[in-house]
Parts: sequence; structure tokens; C-alpha cells
Amino acid sequence: MGTEPATADHDATDKFIDGRLDHWLDRLATLVNQPSISSQNVGLEATADVVAGLLEESGFDARVMPSDPYPVVYAESNGSGDRTLLCYNHYDVQPPEPLELWDSPPFEARRRNGKMFGRGIQDDKGQLISRLAAIDAVKRTLGELPCRIKFIIEGGEEIASPGVPEFVQENQDLLQADACVWETGGVGYDERPIIILGLRGICYIELRARALSRDAHSGMAHVVPNAAWRLIWALVSIKDRQEHILVDGFYDDVIPASEAELAMLDALPDECERTCASYGIQHLLLGRTGAESRREVFSPTASVDGLSAGYEGPGSKTIIPAEAMAKMDFRLVPDQDPVDICEKIRAHLRAEGFEGIEVEYLGGERPGRTPVDDPFVQMTIETAQQVYGSAPRVSPLMGGSGPVAPFRDHLRVPVVTLGISHPDSMVHGPNEHIRIDQFVRGTRHMARLVERFGRG
Amino acid sequence: MGTEPATADHDATDKFIDGRLDHWLDRLATLVNQPSISSQNVGLEATADVVAGLLEESGFDARVMPSDPYPVVYAESNGSGDRTLLCYNHYDVQPPEPLELWDSPPFEARRRNGKMFGRGIQDDKGQLISRLAAIDAVKRTLGELPCRIKFIIEGGEEIASPGVPEFVQENQDLLQADACVWETGGVGYDERPIIILGLRGICYIELRARALSRDAHSGMAHVVPNAAWRLIWALVSIKDRQEHILVDGFYDDVIPASEAELAMLDALPDECERTCASYGIQHLLLGRTGAESRREVFSPTASVDGLSAGYEGPGSKTIIPAEAMAKMDFRLVPDQDPVDICEKIRAHLRAEGFEGIEVEYLGGERPGRTPVDDPFVQMTIETAQQVYGSAPRVSPLMGGSGPVAPFRDHLRVPVVTLGISHPDSMVHGPNEHIRIDQFVRGTRHMARLVERFGRG
Repeated sequence: MGTEPATADHDATDKFIDGRLDHWLDRLATLVNQPSISSQNVGLEATADVVAGLLEESGFDARVMPSDPYPVVYAESNGSGDRTLLCYNHYDVQPPEPLELWDSPPFEARRRNGKMFGRGIQDDKGQLISRLAAIDAVKRTLGELPCRIKFIIEGGEEIASPGVPEFVQENQDLLQADACVWETGGVGYDERPIIILGLRGICYIELRARALSRDAHSGMAHVVPNAAWRLIWALVSIKDRQEHILVDGFYDDVIPASEAELAMLDALPDECERTCASYGIQHLLLGRTGAESRREVFSPTASVDGLSAGYEGPGSKTIIPAEAMAKMDFRLVPDQDPVDICEKIRAHLRAEGFEGIEVEYLGGERPGRTPVDDPFVQMTIETAQQVYGSAPRVSPLMGGSGPVAPFRDHLRVPVVTLGISHPDSMVHGPNEHIRIDQFVRGTRHMARLVERFGRG
Repeated sequence: MGTEPATADHDATDKFIDGRLDHWLDRLATLVNQPSISSQNVGLEATADVVAGLLEESGFDARVMPSDPYPVVYAESNGSGDRTLLCYNHYDVQPPEPLELWDSPPFEARRRNGKMFGRGIQDDKGQLISRLAAIDAVKRTLGELPCRIKFIIEGGEEIASPGVPEFVQENQDLLQADACVWETGGVGYDERPIIILGLRGICYIELRARALSRDAHSGMAHVVPNAAWRLIWALVSIKDRQEHILVDGFYDDVIPASEAELAMLDALPDECERTCASYGIQHLLLGRTGAESRREVFSPTASVDGLSAGYEGPGSKTIIPAEAMAKMDFRLVPDQDPVDICEKIRAHLRAEGFEGIEVEYLGGERPGRTPVDDPFVQMTIETAQQVYGSAPRVSPLMGGSGPVAPFRDHLRVPVVTLGISHPDSMVHGPNEHIRIDQFVRGTRHMARLVERFGRG
């Protein structure tokens, strides 16, 4: 047998996971109680140190490496096999506001009713701790890890990972791996695991119209221009009421979904009713069916995420706003590029007569996806089936975004999702939580995948 | 001579005004130092009492009468003649914010460089004090007032005078008069007096779009509707880029300006360059000339006064806003009616498929104007010529609004403007001030008009 990896005793691994559950939930609480809000620059460096300490405690060589705007924690641990598994996670969280909607303080982790609450407890601190718990259990069962494992844990995921593309490119050798487990993943409403093979890209911009050097009395509305109107007219030149984006060349690089991808989307459960109930709406956007809206994930979108101009307080104030602001994000599909899209929007606004509107590029990510026939994808599907007792759903692309593209381009690794998440966990919202039973199942899946991956 | 009014000795009256200037500026300081912010419900009742006290001190019978939302100060004083002059003023002021832009505290009146600073010092506390100073000087010169004088001084002018139409209607007998001096008035950039004969109406509304019961992750932009987009599309259905209002029936009640009114507008000075410099713009709205923009005062306008939706802080947040809000005002011309206009906007939005957008009516006023050939208008023009040594400009309609319509409809009085204002006084903005030389001239004009009016 010599250097050959031992064959895992799954029951023993699962027992280790169960037996050390409280230990790892304690570690999770410590991590949650440490605020790390990337959009507000709160606690990032301190949290990076806490995370590096946790990795060291788990037997990894960990170091805090500089990156923009917040440090990356890099860690690695050798194993008996010669293959390398890379885990991508993040230690930053969304802002906790609005605070008044939380039932317990967001940065004081609390267990109740089989759940555990706190900002970032699922996204993404719980996923990280779950992976450490899985690796710990495998190592205790097998006596050693069956493969090399590396972690890249960044601090800017919630602000579109501005430093990750450059970090991955510059540290290609260090991060070299055979496969990658993404930061997110778990089960759907039907408790079946979902494995996601791709993420949309994003282009995030802020538009600012400045019409006057100061607000004017609105009795002058026939005399001087209004920044709010100018911005509104610019915005409607970007997208029509049928959701069609009107920017010249916007769709040039869109690759339509393949038949296989459409078939995967069609096989996903219909969540139309649940979505409508969850958001208090009668119909999905444009009256689409669930099946239609699932296929639309391969179409890019244009959202207005924020608007501000003039007087926003109670009652009336009669002014012509000097300035107006809109925040927009464009979710991009293969092979759109966010910098190219931003340039096309700028050119569009100039062509439409909106030269005065400034477009600031606040960040972007390219879309990225892994082919479904990659052996690592199949390994993830098989192990999910073993742990959950049901075949996982497989989605070719999700609506959200992440820095998956540089991992695909520079490291050439297949990227899959798996983990502890479930759809009602209020990620990004008040009362974010994990379900402890799903924490255990997600951890078991990770452990099973590490063992299976180690066997080659 | 008996009961005939004495003929005034203008030099003596002017001397009284000069001699008592410091006394009245002290009174003005006391009044300015009393905050009275109608939009924030700060200090209104206390200020009404101070104002009633000032009127009593000036020999008027004054009383504080209930009105909605703030009390009205009513005062009257008999004179030797049987004619009655009504003065309309207001004791409320605009909010002082942004405080950091004031060179001295807004509610501590300060004199420097021939000016006096404070919130509301021109609009409208200085105008009120100037009228009391003028009446005092006439009375001291003639021994008694040559006519009856009434004051109606309200506390809600800066929030579109919600209670005034009803107050005037219910107190028609009490307020009965032969002519009315409006709360505002003064000189233009060229130091020549301007007499304004009409005010536009206004319809102020708040539009609220609610698309979702809570904000959604913008990765769902292909699945759920966006309140900001819905509001934006509703707004552009209301007005096009050529400033044409698209609401069905909106222009039905518009009476075009007469040739005489157009001639008056054409004779007004061209302030195009000054306006451009003042607001930091290259051209007036739509590239209009000064003459064109003056004539546009007889066209109604639609302004977006405020916008709010989603994330408005620094950097990026990727959400689909559940709600979005816009504040709008429509400046109305004869004979548009604000309630009718609001109903037409609601019908328009329903017809355009925006049933879900709530339209709240925050207030309105009808337009109102006085014919230029009214004898009181001619009297105001003649006395202005005497005091200023130059013929006044006469404007048939100004861009702003006020509750002039109920005075015209219920009391059937001619309404004119005159007073202490000058165009650089920063009304509604930081460092609002009066010029003391113009305070004196405006007071002299008011005194001359009272004397002239008393002679019949």
C-alpha cells in the first residue's frame, strides 16, 4: 500500500464530523463575532489574522499576503497523494444594516431552533469552517490528507473581488491545482444538492449627471436644466420596458446556451411560486414562466441598484436638482467583458447626447464556467449522490457573479460549488443564518469529495 | 379739510423711516432669531405670538387665529379714509440646511457690509418689518393712517400654504379689502423695481413604485421586477426630452398669453448671461434665448425635485430595489387647476400600464393674476417711479407660486408685489440676506403707496 492513499471509512469520517460539531460551531461563532465589512472597511486586517490562525490550528501553513484592497489569506497542507485541491473562500461580509430588522445582534453568533444566526455565518464564514471541519475529519480517519489542499481566502468578495484577478495571475505557480471548490454551494428548496458550474460576470457603474452648479428654485424649470431629468432620460436610453438593452454592441459577445445547457436548466425545479411568495409578487418579470426565467440566466441584465437626486425627505421641497446619481449593474454572460461593456455604455451615452453624464467604473468580473463533462464535476455529482441519497441538480450558470474567470483562465482548474447553504438562509439580509443539519451534510459532502479526489 | 386725508410730506416720511431704521432692524433681528420652519414644524406657534406682539406694538389689533397646519396672525388698524389695504405676508421660513455653508448662524441675525444675514430675513420677515416701518412713518407724518390696513400673516407659505384657500374663503368678510400687497417684491439686477402681477400655480406630488416586498439580489434581475426601473419608465412617460408634457389633457385649460402680456415679457431685461453665470451653465434650457425663456413662463413645467431608490451610499451594492420614490412639481399657468392636473396624471399612469405606482398629492395652488390696467397696479407703478426715479419693470407672471388665487377669487382684490428684495439675496439658500439700502427704498415705496392709496 505504501504511499497509496488509504480507502476511507465513511462512517468513521461522519462520526468524527458529528463528534467535533460543537468545536467547529464554536470556531464559527468566534469568526462571526469578528466584523469584517469590506464595503465599509471595517475589521478586514484583524479578521485575516484570525482566519490565518484558524488555518494554522488545522495544520496548514498559512500566511497573510497583501492584495488590493484587503489582504488574502493563503494556506496549504501536504497530503499523501500528488494531486492538489484548491478552495476559494472569503472572510468579508455584507454590511449588517438595517440593524433594526435583526432579532439578535449581527456580530454575536446565536444558536436557536437548530439554526445559528449572524452576519456572514453562511456567506462565507460557515462554508470556510465547514471545509476545515471536513478536512479535519478526513485527516483523523485516514491518518493523513490524501491530497495537497490549498486555500485562497480573500477579503473583497462582497465588493466584486477587485484584487483577485491580479492576485491569481501573479501567483499562478503558488495556486497551481487540479481542481477548485468554490466558496458557495448547498441544497435547494427540495433539499436536493445543487452543483453550479458557472457564474455570470458583472459590470458595476455609477452614473452622475451634473446640470447646475447649485440647486435652483423650481419656478425656474422653464429656464435651467434639471439633473434628475437628464439622468432619467439617459437611463431609459439604456434599456427598454421589454428588458432589451439598447447599447450598441452590447450583445456582440454573447454565446447562446448550448442544447445541453438548456436541458440542464429545464431539469431544474420550478421555483416560480416560491419566488413570487418570497418577494410578494403576482408574476415573475414580464410574466415569464419559471422555465422561461431559468433559461434567461444566459441573457445579460441591466439593473438600477440605486438612485439619488434633490430632496428625499418628508413632504415637499421645490428645487431643481443640480446633481443626480444612479448605480447600475450589468450581469454578463459568456463571453462578455466588463471593461468592454463599460466602454460601450460610455460610447452609447455620448452618441445619445448625454456627454455630460459621468460614468465611473466601480468594478467588474468576467463570466466563467466549467464544462459538465469534466471528471471533477462528475466526482462532485457522485459524492453528492452518496451523501444526500439523491442525484444533485446541476446548473450550468447562476444569476450571481464571482471571480471565477481568473481561476479558469490562469489556473485552468475545473470549478464546482458544494457546501452548507440553503435558499432561505437570508444571505445578505437581516437574520442571516445556517441550518445546523445542513452544515453537517455539507461538511460530509466536502469530506467525501476530498477522500474521492485523493484516490485520483 | 376735516376727514379728508392729509397730503403727505414725503421728505418727512422718508426722514421718519431713516430715523427709525435701527429700531426696525432690531425688531427684524428679534424676529429672525426666532426659528419658524414650517416643513419641520419648528417654532411656528411661538413665532405667531411674537408677530402678533409686533403688530400690537405698532398700533394694530392683532389676534392669532387657528388654521391648518399653523395659525394665521390677523391684524387690522383703522385709518381716516374708508378704503382698505390688505397685506399678505408669512412668518415661516425655509429649513436652514445645509448649515455648514452659512458664514454666521442662520437664526442669529448679523449685520455686516451694509447687509443683514439670517434665515428668512428677506423671505419674508424683512418684508413684514419693512411694511410695519412704512406704516409707522406714514402715521407719524400724517398723524393717522389714511386708510384701513389689514394683515394676514400665515405660517405655511414655504409648504404651499395648505390652509390659506380655506382660511380666506371662510373669512371673506373679515379680510374684505380694496387692494392687496403681496408678500414679495423689490428690484432686479439693474436696481429698477419690478412689479409682478401674477403667480403660477403648482401641483406637488410624490410617486412611489413598489415592485417587491423586499430588496432582491441583483443576480435575480432576469426573474423579478425592479422598482427603480418601473418608476423611471413612468417618469419618462410624463415628459419628453423636448420638455413637452405627455399627460392626456394636461394643456386643455392653458390660456395663451395675450399680446399685451407678451409685450411686457419682451420688455423685461435679458438675464440670460447672468443666469448662466449664476448656475454654471453654458446655455439656458433647450438653448433658449433670454427672450424665449421669458415667454415660456406662460407654459406649465414638470420638474423632478427628488429621487430615491435602493443603495445610495459610497461604492457598490448589488440589489434590486423593492421601492423607489420621486417627488415632482408641476408649475401651472392660467387656468390650470392642481387637483384636476393630479387626477390627469393618475389617469395617465393607469393608461400607460403603471397602475402599481402610487401618486400622493402633497399640495397645490391655482395660478392667479391681476390685470395690468387695474388702477391699483397703476398706482403702484407711479409710486415706484417716484421713489426709485425710474419706471418699474412690470411682469405679468412669475415662475414661482403662491396662494394668490383665493385672494383674487374670494376677495376680488388686485394683487401687486413690492418691497425690499433683490435678486442676489440667496432666498432659500445659505447666507440669505437683505441689503439695508434696499430695505430703506422698499420701505419708502410702501409708505408712498399707503399715502397714495389713502387719497383714493
